[in-house]
Amino acid sequence: MSVCFPKLSRVAVCGGTHGNELSGVYLVRELQRCAGDGAHVNTLLCDTFVFPSPSGPISDTAPYEMIRSRELNALLGPKGSPKAVDLICDLHNTTADMGLCLIAYSDHDWICLHIFRHLQRQMPDIPMRYIHFDVSNKESYSLDSVGKHGFAIEIGPQPHGVVRSNIYTAMKFGVQHMLDWVRFFNSGTIFEGGFVDVFTMVKHIDYPRDRETRNITAAIHPQLQDRDFSLLQPEDPLFQTFSGETLRYKGKEPLYPFFINECAYYEKSIALSLARKRRVMIPCKGTL
Amino acid sequence: MSVCFPKLSRVAVCGGTHGNELSGVYLVRELQRCAGDGAHVNTLLCDTFVFPSPSGPISDTAPYEMIRSRELNALLGPKGSPKAVDLICDLHNTTADMGLCLIAYSDHDWICLHIFRHLQRQMPDIPMRYIHFDVSNKESYSLDSVGKHGFAIEIGPQPHGVVRSNIYTAMKFGVQHMLDWVRFFNSGTIFEGGFVDVFTMVKHIDYPRDRETRNITAAIHPQLQDRDFSLLQPEDPLFQTFSGETLRYKGKEPLYPFFINECAYYEKSIALSLARKRRVMIPCKGTL
Repeated sequence: MSVCFPKLSRVAVCGGTHGNELSGVYLVRELQRCAGDGAHVNTLLCDTFVFPSPSGPISDTAPYEMIRSRELNALLGPKGSPKAVDLICDLHNTTADMGLCLIAYSDHDWICLHIFRHLQRQMPDIPMRYIHFDVSNKESYSLDSVGKHGFAIEIGPQPHGVVRSNIYTAMKFGVQHMLDWVRFFNSGTIFEGGFVDVFTMVKHIDYPRDRETRNITAAIHPQLQDRDFSLLQPEDPLFQTFSGETLRYKGKEPLYPFFINECAYYEKSIALSLARKRRVMIPCKGTL
Repeated sequence: MSVCFPKLSRVAVCGGTHGNELSGVYLVRELQRCAGDGAHVNTLLCDTFVFPSPSGPISDTAPYEMIRSRELNALLGPKGSPKAVDLICDLHNTTADMGLCLIAYSDHDWICLHIFRHLQRQMPDIPMRYIHFDVSNKESYSLDSVGKHGFAIEIGPQPHGVVRSNIYTAMKFGVQHMLDWVRFFNSGTIFEGGFVDVFTMVKHIDYPRDRETRNITAAIHPQLQDRDFSLLQPEDPLFQTFSGETLRYKGKEPLYPFFINECAYYEKSIALSLARKRRVMIPCKGTL
């Protein structure tokens, strides 16, 4: 089986969608500084700065984030239209020890899956996974969903508000290899088919909380902390309460934890997410 | 040589002075929840929430931080007065890999130095240092300077906005051993004299910055990141620019780096601080 696609003429690399995730902020600035040096793809380099849903009515007093999301939808989309850019790569950081993850809303977007496999081969020293949020394109609200194809590159661990050289460098190489792949693809290279492991998000788990105050009463257990993508078995330690007690995973199915102790998810009531792993066959690929 | 002090009747343990440094926030809540369980010291447990200088005029429109600092100075001080509490321990976290540090404005406050030595002996698995900021009591502006004796306990690495069990637990044990020491001291225990290594802050180093935008142009070098308190020699790697170049330490004196890549210090123009190490003799100690 082989699949052909039109060329990817317009690719957007975006940083700063979450303004305190600094690797992407500084990487996009660096790419902007170097723009023109041998770029063979029409690459849009975007300082994005916060991006909620672009739909719904907007007023004069709308918050900055709402206004900016409209601007970005106009610049990179409109979402779902033929004018939308061909590919969006949105750069993120996490405090979780997740290595480099491609996060997408599809488990059969062959462009995204081939790019993932290329990065895996080019960067064998970096732990790398493909995460699939099983949400329809209409329901998806992230910046990368505005393009015809799109994904987030999520790299950690890095505290928000901090840039760490090793994380920045991994992101830089990831973006370079992604753009290389697009150039190869556009120049007619045929990519072999094969298999990719996909982690499909199943559910989130919240912290234990005080019934009245809703304050959290436990932290991620030290035996789980920094063990993203290590299979969590029923009865494995999950949390350690602030008085020292161990709370265990009561699910019946072994699942793969990720986004363990992500800073931005405390307010979303997510202590960690759990995924099922599947092997997906991707077809041989070329341009039309 | 031996030194005698009056009993430490009133001890304050404070968390939340920086509200996103979560170990102290949750530890003080936990201690408040358990208050009364065998506490033999009059321990004030304070949710503090941000503490700038308590001096200068204050208006009706003063920011919350200014108002709160006045309240705390009234509650725990007034600074410099006989009414001030005997000992303040203010709990902090850092994104730097500093282990557990006691930070004080004096290198001859025998109470603080004896507590430090007690913690070192009781927690041999935790890297522990005593940092001395050589600033007079008048110039000092932190919460712990309001007490007759005082120090900050600074523990890392922990991203701000996140609580990690291992860091929380180290802080919890540190505070328990500190309160134990106070109880021993108040009940007449004589503590032997001895030596303590003290790291006295010498200077700060800022990130390389763009002349016009003042944006940073480099991150901490990967060979320096997480190497707090490892001696930095002239010509050792200091920064890695966002284009990949290595910048080296141009100082003439080998010094000890700390607060390497602390999140809150980007805006203070501090990439790291440097200290000189000295050995201080502390006298044998008892109560009056």
